[in-house]
Amino acid sequence: MAKRLAGKPVVEKIAEEIGGRVASLADKGIVCGLSLLRVGERPDDLSYERTAEKRAESLGIEVRKTVLDEGVSQAGIEAAIDEVNGDESIHGCLMFRPLPSDINEQAVCDALATEKDIDGISSAALAAVFMDRDFGFAPCTAAACMRVLDYYDVPLEGAHVVVVGRSLVIGKPIAMMLLRRNATVTLCHSRTKDLAAVMRAADIVVCATGRARMFKAECFSPDQVVLDVGINFDEAGKLCGDVDFDEVEPIVGAITPVPGGIGSVTTSVLMAHVVEAAERTTSA
Amino acid sequence: MAKRLAGKPVVEKIAEEIGGRVASLADKGIVCGLSLLRVGERPDDLSYERTAEKRAESLGIEVRKTVLDEGVSQAGIEAAIDEVNGDESIHGCLMFRPLPSDINEQAVCDALATEKDIDGISSAALAAVFMDRDFGFAPCTAAACMRVLDYYDVPLEGAHVVVVGRSLVIGKPIAMMLLRRNATVTLCHSRTKDLAAVMRAADIVVCATGRARMFKAECFSPDQVVLDVGINFDEAGKLCGDVDFDEVEPIVGAITPVPGGIGSVTTSVLMAHVVEAAERTTSA
Repeated sequence: MAKRLAGKPVVEKIAEEIGGRVASLADKGIVCGLSLLRVGERPDDLSYERTAEKRAESLGIEVRKTVLDEGVSQAGIEAAIDEVNGDESIHGCLMFRPLPSDINEQAVCDALATEKDIDGISSAALAAVFMDRDFGFAPCTAAACMRVLDYYDVPLEGAHVVVVGRSLVIGKPIAMMLLRRNATVTLCHSRTKDLAAVMRAADIVVCATGRARMFKAECFSPDQVVLDVGINFDEAGKLCGDVDFDEVEPIVGAITPVPGGIGSVTTSVLMAHVVEAAERTTSA
Repeated sequence: MAKRLAGKPVVEKIAEEIGGRVASLADKGIVCGLSLLRVGERPDDLSYERTAEKRAESLGIEVRKTVLDEGVSQAGIEAAIDEVNGDESIHGCLMFRPLPSDINEQAVCDALATEKDIDGISSAALAAVFMDRDFGFAPCTAAACMRVLDYYDVPLEGAHVVVVGRSLVIGKPIAMMLLRRNATVTLCHSRTKDLAAVMRAADIVVCATGRARMFKAECFSPDQVVLDVGINFDEAGKLCGDVDFDEVEPIVGAITPVPGGIGSVTTSVLMAHVVEAAERTTSA
C-alpha cells in the first residue's frame, strides 16, 4: 500500500503560516485583497470560485468578485483588468480560464500587472519561471505540487522526474521549478513513444493530462512518488484524477489522492500568493 | 563511422535563402543593419565579432559596431541600447556577453527592443520560446541546432532527446523548441545521476556544458544523433567540443564536428534573424 500524500496537512500548514502573516499585515493596517474575475457562468468556475471565497474568508482575506457577461468584448475584459491593476485594495487577481474563444486570452493575461498576477498567467510571470528569476508568481498548480513534494520530504536533488503534459499551467512550469531544485526532468506528452516505459523508469511522476484515469498499473513501478494533478469526472460523474488510483495505489511508494490531493493545495497556494503580494507592497 | 553533420552545407543553404531576401529588401530600399555591441576587448568577443562582420559583409548586411569601455556604467550601456532601439537603420543587435560583473546584465538585455533582439536575450523573447509564441527570436545557438537537425532530416516527432546543460542560451530554449516539435525531452545537468546511462538511452543527444571533451564513449550508443554545442579549448590550446570526438565518432550514428558544426551555423542563424527582423518592419 502506498503512502497517501494527502493535501490536508499541507493545507493546514499553509493556513498556519498565512495566519501569522495576515495578522502582521493587519497590524500595519493592510487587509489582503483577492480579486476573482469571472466571465460567464461555467459550473467549473463557479465551483472554484466558491472554494476560493470560503478559503479566503477563513483566512481573513477579502474577496472582490467581478463577473462579466459571457458576451463581453476584449476591451471590456481589459477594462476590468485595468480596474484591478489600479485598485490598491486588491493585491492579487485570479481570472478564471479559458476565456470565451473570440477573446485574445494572452493579451488579457499580459494586461494584468505582474505584481498582482498571483496565478502566473502573464508572459512576464512565465518568463520568470523559465529564467529562475525571483519575481512574479508561478502558476498555483505547479507551486502546489512543489509544496506537496516539500511537505512530504520527497528528495528532488538528482531525482529523475517524469512530467506528463506540457501545458503552461502545470507541465512546463513545474519542469522548470524541479530543474531549479536539481532534479533531472523528462517532459512527456501524447506523442511520447513507449510512455509507460518512460514513466516506469522515473523516481517521481507528475501526471497532468486531464484525462480521467488514463494511467494504469503498467505506467508505474515500486517506490515511485506519484503526483496526480488531474481533476476529471468519469462517466458516472465521479471526481477522479489522471491516474487509476485503485489500480496504481497498491504498486507505488506514495501517491496523491483525487480529491484531497494537489487540487486542495492549489487554493491554499493561491491564498499564500495573495498574502505574499500584499507583503511585497509594504517592502517596495 | 558516424555520419558527419557538417555545418557547411547548412550555412550555404541559409546563405542562399538570405541572398534572395536581402535582394528583395534592397528593392524596397532597405539595407539590413546589424549592430554589434561590445564591452571591453575580450578575445572571445573579438573573434566572434570578426566572424560576424565577415559573414554580414558577404551577405550584404551592414554592420554597425559599438565598443564601450570595460569600465562603462549601467546607464552607459543602457544608453547604447537605447540608441540601437531608436536607430531605424539597425534591424537587429548582437550584444556580446557576459557583461562586466558589476553590471545588471538582465536589465540591459530587457532594455533591448524585442523586435531587435535577434539573439533571444530579453525576457520577452525567452517568454515567447517558453510559451511557443511566434514573436521575437530564439537564442541563435538553439535555433542553429534546430536548423542542423532539420537540414539532415533527423526525425523529431516522438524522438527521445537528452539535453545536457540547462542554460538560457541553449539548454532550456532548445528543450522547448524540441518539445514544440513533439520530441520527448530530458533535461540533464551536473547533478544528474547516472548521466551516462541517461544519455545512452536517447535517440538524440545535445551536449551543451562547455567542458572540453567531457563526454566519452560510455555516454553514447549506436545510431544516436549527437549535437556538440561546446566551443572549448583543450590544454594544448586546440579548439574542441564537449564530446570526445575521436572516441565517440566510431560509436554513434551521426555527430556534429567542432569546429565546423553548430558554431558555424550559429553565425548564419544570426544573419537570418537580422533579415527576418528587417522583413518584419516592412510588414508591420
